[in-house]
Amino acid sequence: MTDPRAQTVGDLGERALLARIFAALSGSSRALVGPGDDAAVLAAPDGRVVVSTDTLVHGPDFRLAWSNGLDLGWKAAAVNLADIAAMGARPTALVVALALPDETQAAFVDDLARGLRAACDALAPGCAVEGGDLTASDTLTIAITVLGVLDGADPVLRSGARAGDTVAVAGTLGAAARGLALLFDRFRSADGTPIPVDEAALTAAERNDLRAQLRPAPPIAQGPAAAGGGATAMMDVSDGLLLDARRMAEASEVRIDLDPALDEHALRGGEDHALLACFPPGIALPAGFRPIGRVLARAADAPDRDGFVTVGGAPVTGRGGWDPHRDWDAVRG
Amino acid sequence: MTDPRAQTVGDLGERALLARIFAALSGSSRALVGPGDDAAVLAAPDGRVVVSTDTLVHGPDFRLAWSNGLDLGWKAAAVNLADIAAMGARPTALVVALALPDETQAAFVDDLARGLRAACDALAPGCAVEGGDLTASDTLTIAITVLGVLDGADPVLRSGARAGDTVAVAGTLGAAARGLALLFDRFRSADGTPIPVDEAALTAAERNDLRAQLRPAPPIAQGPAAAGGGATAMMDVSDGLLLDARRMAEASEVRIDLDPALDEHALRGGEDHALLACFPPGIALPAGFRPIGRVLARAADAPDRDGFVTVGGAPVTGRGGWDPHRDWDAVRG
Repeated sequence: MTDPRAQTVGDLGERALLARIFAALSGSSRALVGPGDDAAVLAAPDGRVVVSTDTLVHGPDFRLAWSNGLDLGWKAAAVNLADIAAMGARPTALVVALALPDETQAAFVDDLARGLRAACDALAPGCAVEGGDLTASDTLTIAITVLGVLDGADPVLRSGARAGDTVAVAGTLGAAARGLALLFDRFRSADGTPIPVDEAALTAAERNDLRAQLRPAPPIAQGPAAAGGGATAMMDVSDGLLLDARRMAEASEVRIDLDPALDEHALRGGEDHALLACFPPGIALPAGFRPIGRVLARAADAPDRDGFVTVGGAPVTGRGGWDPHRDWDAVRG
Repeated sequence: MTDPRAQTVGDLGERALLARIFAALSGSSRALVGPGDDAAVLAAPDGRVVVSTDTLVHGPDFRLAWSNGLDLGWKAAAVNLADIAAMGARPTALVVALALPDETQAAFVDDLARGLRAACDALAPGCAVEGGDLTASDTLTIAITVLGVLDGADPVLRSGARAGDTVAVAGTLGAAARGLALLFDRFRSADGTPIPVDEAALTAAERNDLRAQLRPAPPIAQGPAAAGGGATAMMDVSDGLLLDARRMAEASEVRIDLDPALDEHALRGGEDHALLACFPPGIALPAGFRPIGRVLARAADAPDRDGFVTVGGAPVTGRGGWDPHRDWDAVRG
């Protein structure tokens, strides 16, 4: 008889696999109609729903040698929850599309479901997996769509920053990038292949960085808190502070000047999923936010594609952040 | 200088590719906050939102030799819209996660966006792409989440069928499976590799079948019409009538007896995305629905895993429908 822990997705088939996933999620649904029908039905009490989607793909976004199912489920949930928080909204539901190679271990899928649930419970209590889809694929892919509600507040866009605002951040900056550097520098074989992490070989600070990379904990509750605290603009820092601050400045037609004390990992490292927000002058920052710069008027004669972000008043040089299509080859390395 | 039609996703990078996709979708958004921020904000006027997700993966779900970008965008939208219609709801928004190999032609992505838009315009006017995500992957994957609204109606579940109901269907049964059989039988090389379709070699009936496979047109408006017309249960027929009717019968704890005049393609063929619905006896079927069977009480002594679906009163034998993890190898063929 086969060891049940060794069963693969191909052995089980869709129906049995779905039953296992439902078991891992059992009791978590808050939907009007939960998983199992053609679609879920969710409450949207103030007549609006916030929605975003983000995908993790084996290769560019994770390696199975470095991330287990619990890590991946957690991270896939966390990065999506952050997009809802960044609108000033409260996440209420995930729908999860899994594309799985036949040889995927069924136990891995159990862990993935448990990781999704654990991240929701820890970061966004009340949010649960309310629907999904299973497909066969050669490439393990986790595509999540997250929904949320605004509880009567206005959404906070990235286009609302005004000259004079304080630029602030909640959450870590640079830790996820340091964690990724650790994996690349210390946990690959001579030919570049990822090898399992030996946590005992890490310092406490390094373990924190690794955790920020593998199980990020973005400050989800700070999103609605920022909206309630008067934030004029907000977004999550997923591709690096320089690149994301530039997007905010461009959308708001302002210049953002960042604190020169920020180091290179904080400025250029991706995947932190911190919340970057602007607040009017003279307003106390909500708990969890710290100032990292200010919003200035953009010079009328600034070059079209430049001058949106400065650091200590000086222009930024070099690469801004992460682009999956441009940067993936380096990551394969 | 490179021919712009020959540019790849890897050449362009994420920013330029997104700009092209937005251009193809320009003017279609009906959202309170449309694409471009961390999340979209949609109206949910009656305080509820309906949500479902469905993924197309290169290999098990489509072949690029057989489907162009327009076909794929259309089909990815259509199969998702059908899940919302099957709840008795009206689709309002798609969010689209694309995982693309670097070598994907940018023109293919333009076509995909146009196909998504064309299907929404034709099948569910008022529904548009309101958000998305781009990722690099070795496997071309289109993961769509669709949202909809109930306009004050109760959702129609698959669990509401009652003994005495008429079983009815709107849309085609079997055509998509005949279209798939055409592709496998006539448009593969000697070693089984898919080759481009020669439409001139097909009869008019065959072209219809091919279209049902490549650009299905599920009867989206019939979903809310069925809800308004008193449907007790509804679902979309995606994995074959026998398998999906069984799911409905199981959820409703009834037996569904199907018309013996239904042929094998109609009974077992997947991907039609017709709407299967039950209506109380004596009610006129809404326009677009035709009767294909009736709901009976399930015998108290019926075996646990059997007896949910009969055809002309007789038990069903053989395979029920499509399971991607069990059946993919056959499709690789």
